[in-house]
Order: sequence, then C-alpha cells, then structure tokens
Amino acid sequence: MQGRIIQFLKQADGYVSGEEMSDDLHISRAAVWKYIDQLRQDGYDILAVPHLGYKLQSLPDKMLAHEIQFGLSTKFMGQKVYSFDSLASTMDEAFRLGMEGAPEGTVICAEGQTKGRGRLGRSWLSPRGKGIYCSLILRPKLLPTQMPPLTLMTAVALAEAMRQTTSLQSVIKWPNDLLIHSRKVAGILTELRAEVDQVKFVVIGVGLNVNTNSHQLLDTATSLKIETKKTINRIEVFQAFLRSMEIWYGKVLKGQFDSVLDYCRQHSATIKKHVRIHDATGDAQGQALDIDHDGGLLIRQASGVIVKKMAGDVMTLRDKS
Amino acid sequence: MQGRIIQFLKQADGYVSGEEMSDDLHISRAAVWKYIDQLRQDGYDILAVPHLGYKLQSLPDKMLAHEIQFGLSTKFMGQKVYSFDSLASTMDEAFRLGMEGAPEGTVICAEGQTKGRGRLGRSWLSPRGKGIYCSLILRPKLLPTQMPPLTLMTAVALAEAMRQTTSLQSVIKWPNDLLIHSRKVAGILTELRAEVDQVKFVVIGVGLNVNTNSHQLLDTATSLKIETKKTINRIEVFQAFLRSMEIWYGKVLKGQFDSVLDYCRQHSATIKKHVRIHDATGDAQGQALDIDHDGGLLIRQASGVIVKKMAGDVMTLRDKS
Repeated sequence: MQGRIIQFLKQADGYVSGEEMSDDLHISRAAVWKYIDQLRQDGYDILAVPHLGYKLQSLPDKMLAHEIQFGLSTKFMGQKVYSFDSLASTMDEAFRLGMEGAPEGTVICAEGQTKGRGRLGRSWLSPRGKGIYCSLILRPKLLPTQMPPLTLMTAVALAEAMRQTTSLQSVIKWPNDLLIHSRKVAGILTELRAEVDQVKFVVIGVGLNVNTNSHQLLDTATSLKIETKKTINRIEVFQAFLRSMEIWYGKVLKGQFDSVLDYCRQHSATIKKHVRIHDATGDAQGQALDIDHDGGLLIRQASGVIVKKMAGDVMTLRDKS
Repeated sequence: MQGRIIQFLKQADGYVSGEEMSDDLHISRAAVWKYIDQLRQDGYDILAVPHLGYKLQSLPDKMLAHEIQFGLSTKFMGQKVYSFDSLASTMDEAFRLGMEGAPEGTVICAEGQTKGRGRLGRSWLSPRGKGIYCSLILRPKLLPTQMPPLTLMTAVALAEAMRQTTSLQSVIKWPNDLLIHSRKVAGILTELRAEVDQVKFVVIGVGLNVNTNSHQLLDTATSLKIETKKTINRIEVFQAFLRSMEIWYGKVLKGQFDSVLDYCRQHSATIKKHVRIHDATGDAQGQALDIDHDGGLLIRQASGVIVKKMAGDVMTLRDKS
C-alpha cells in the first residue's frame, strides 16, 4: 500500500487530497495518514497543507523496494524485491529465500552489510547508503559446472548499466570484477545450490561502489562518484542493471553466450595481459589468450602449453619488454 | 540427559536404583523419574520395581540420536545427530543446518519422510520405521566439479556396512544406487552449496530399505529384510555405515580415491555392461568401460568414440549376442 500511495503522489500534478487517495485506494483517511507518516519515516519529504492535501517534495536516497520497482517494466527481474536497512550479507538472505522457493528474478538488497563478502569468504566493504549491495535469485536449467558464464554475463549487464547511466566505461577483470582506471568499482559473487547434475538455484551477488567516498574504500578501489565527481542516483543505476540483466540472461539461456564473450573481449582488463593466476589446484602464469566458450580463461604458459582456469585470483603482471 | 540415563541402564548389571542415578548424574530423584517417563514414551521398556529400582527390558526400534551414538566411537562422523520422528526430507533439514554452520559429520535422520526424494526431485518411498533415511553434512575443501567421487565413496561405505552387518554383498550401479540381485536396495543423493571455486558444504543423503516389506516397495526395489528373511537392527547397520564413511572419506581427502575406484570396479553393476545413459546434454549408448579418476563413467560408443558422463540416468541393456 505504501507503494501505491507513493505512486499516487508521484503521478500527481501538484497536491493530492487525502479524500481522493482514500476513495481511490479504498482505505480510510486515517489509514492514508498512517501510510504518509510511515513514508516520512522512510525519508520521503511529503508536504501536508490543510484544504489542499499532500505533495511529494523529495525522495529519500534509499534502495527501497517500491522505488526500485517504480517504472521498472521488466518481465521477472526485480519483480519481487526484499529491501533491508541492514543485513549481515544479502547472499545469505537470498539463499534462505531461494530455499523457501522464491521465484526467479527475486532481488534482495540492503542499505548496508555488516558482513558483506566477496569470493572465498573475503570481506566486501559495504558502508551504509553508499553502494548497491544486492543478490539476485536465478533458476537456470544448467549443470553446476556451467556457472562461469553467469558471472561474466552479470559483469556485462552491470558494465552496460553503468555506461548507460553515468557514461563511464568499465572493463571486466576475469572472472568477477569490474574496474575503472585500474581500480575496482564492482565485484560479483556467484553461489549455487545444486545436485551433481542439476542446479536448484543460483544466487548472484553484486557489490557496486556508487557514492562511496575514497576514505571508505581500499586504495585499489574506486566508486562512480569518485570517477564522475557527481552524486549518483543509485535507483537509476540499479534499475538499468535489472533491465540489462534480464536481456543478457535471456541471451545466455538461448545459448547466445558468444554475445557475452564478445563484450568481455572488447572490454577486458585481462585478455592479452601477462597474468599469474592462483586457484585450489595451484598456480599458472603466462599470457591470457582468450575466454573460452565455457567462461574459462585460456593462458599460454612460457613453455607454450595452454592451460584453462575456471576461476581463481588473477594478478596482472607488468609486460616483459 | 536422556542419553546418560539410557547409558546408565545399559551398563547396569540388573537393577539400578533411582538414588544411584540421581547421585551420579546430580539431578533430583523426581527428575530421574521424569526422564524415565520420557524414555518410555520413546518406546523403551523400563521395568520399575520398588526397593530394587529400574531395569531396561528392551530398546525401541527407532533411529534415536542416543542409540545411534551409543558406542559409536567415530572421530566426527555422527558425533552430532538430529533425529526426527518425521520430516518432509532429511535433505532440506540438513541444508538448513548446514547454512547455520553445523559441523562436518552432522547427521540428520528421520523415522519417516513425507517427501523423501532421489536425484532430480524424484520421490523416494520412505515408509515409517522401516528404512534408514538420513543426510550427512560434509565440508570438504573441493571444487563444485569434484562431487562425483563423494557419491561413489558413500556407495562404497554403505556397501561395506551392509556386508559387515548382514553379509549381503551389493553392487554399485553408477552413479548413485546400490543393488542386490538386480534390485535397488539403497540410493544416494549428493547436494552442495558452493561458490564457483569453492564448496561451502555438501549434504549426502542415503535412503536404505532395511525392514521394508515388498508391498511397500516398487517392483524394482528390495530391502535387507527381504534378502535375509530376517528383521535387521537399523542402528547396527547405521553405526557401521558412519564408521565406514569416516574411513572412506578420510581416504578421499588424502587423495586416495583409487581405493574407492577399486572397490567400485570389483562390485559394479555397470562396468562392462551395454548401457544407455541420459543426462541434460543428451543420450549416449555403448559399452561402459570404466569409471575415470574424477568419478565419471567412460562409455565406448558403437562408432568407437569414447565419451565421459559425470552423472545421469543409466539403463542397462541386454548384451547383443
């Protein structure tokens, strides 16, 4: 109902009377007042003038479910949103909801995370109100070995959304980070629940530094605000991301992963670079040649032998010259 | 405390007085009586004679936590047991506990399951009090692609436990069933929670038909009771399984998967057979040659081309002759 009141106020030209809303929404005028009061507590600046009614002055800078969904117009991505003021990690909450059967496209986001994390349990700094910290539930009919394309697809969708809303072009550091001017602006984390031969659901987490200030970040990180020198509307970026995700996910499901690969090749922080990569099976060093059709990274070692890694920590080394 | 009372009664030679137990366990005699009453409700037949005390006459035929743990003497396998009268599925309960951080070796078992399931969401008949329906939580440092060895290892541990306790020799139908006289006696289900490059935890489910009667089973299934024509003590079989699991899991973690493979080769319902196998990527048909070092099944097709499958539905075909 709060969402419907907000919609009413947003669509209004000037003031809306309490009576009008009460009639239209089939609730009492006292109920209208109660919802207006709750919205004010959420940070909406709503003017109330006797005999005129209510007028929306300004929106809060918050990732609220009804703001994310206002005018979103996707088919399923973000059609169910759970927004929290604070969570330990949106990943765990999403996993819980996934186990309870939450539908594909469900979004969990939080203003701040107390235990935000990246790959392999590393922490992700999540200062309140500054970034986009969200997890998405997907239910693709894939094998558990087919996850790397989903991570890369998310990187592409996020890069596209950033470019559309801020004109910033980021590059993809295989397997799961986005960089601007060699600094990390976003990270992606893919987790799954699966049988050996069937994925039950996937949770894709995104941490994007939007209005984060430099003192809140590691030296190796940046934010959209630092890069543009402007405060960025998180809702706009996030809506663009959800729309973009729906499109790119659709392509991957239709077997058009090549279009993701093309984007990755054109905007890569890894391909052609001399890299050292570490995973559970050991180290590999050499020139990153290309991303393979399954999302793995192909590396030509000094011996000439080409190896493929499906994930891992990548260090970009200075070119020998 | 119930477990300690039972231990007292089991170790006693004849009667134990309430006073003795109350002194030794530092609880009141009224509390002793309360626990005895609870144990009787669980099905323990406990005789109470004035001036003599309590005597354990017989145990209930139930998979109770303190029965499973009595004399188990494993290091971690089954050192934490949650036993339920009925669950929808022990898999879901185990997954929930895994997410809450339950330690490696935690066991979840139920007398009956209302939605017991096998691979790909197929149902597993779980009549009350007749079978072993359990799930185990493991936390191996493996990649999500390294699951097939865990399923095979469980099949070996279970086959060993059955042989030790009933002298029945079962064979392993790749990837996850045990057969006696060509009928299914047990099924194994492996599920995981993982990142792309790290397993967080694995839940291994076992459904074993122990005292199940033929009218409670599909035509293609059998039970230990049907095969031995005796009622089998489920606790003994389950304890043997937990001990066996600890040993075989230790081998796999030490990189000794070859010993699992040797057992599978010697007791296989699949190798050398003409099979048709179906998975998400399609069908393959040919002679099952061997199980590979990663747990996959190698099949020589009519064309001579050898393909490998990591999981799937296997039909054994009549030999062409």
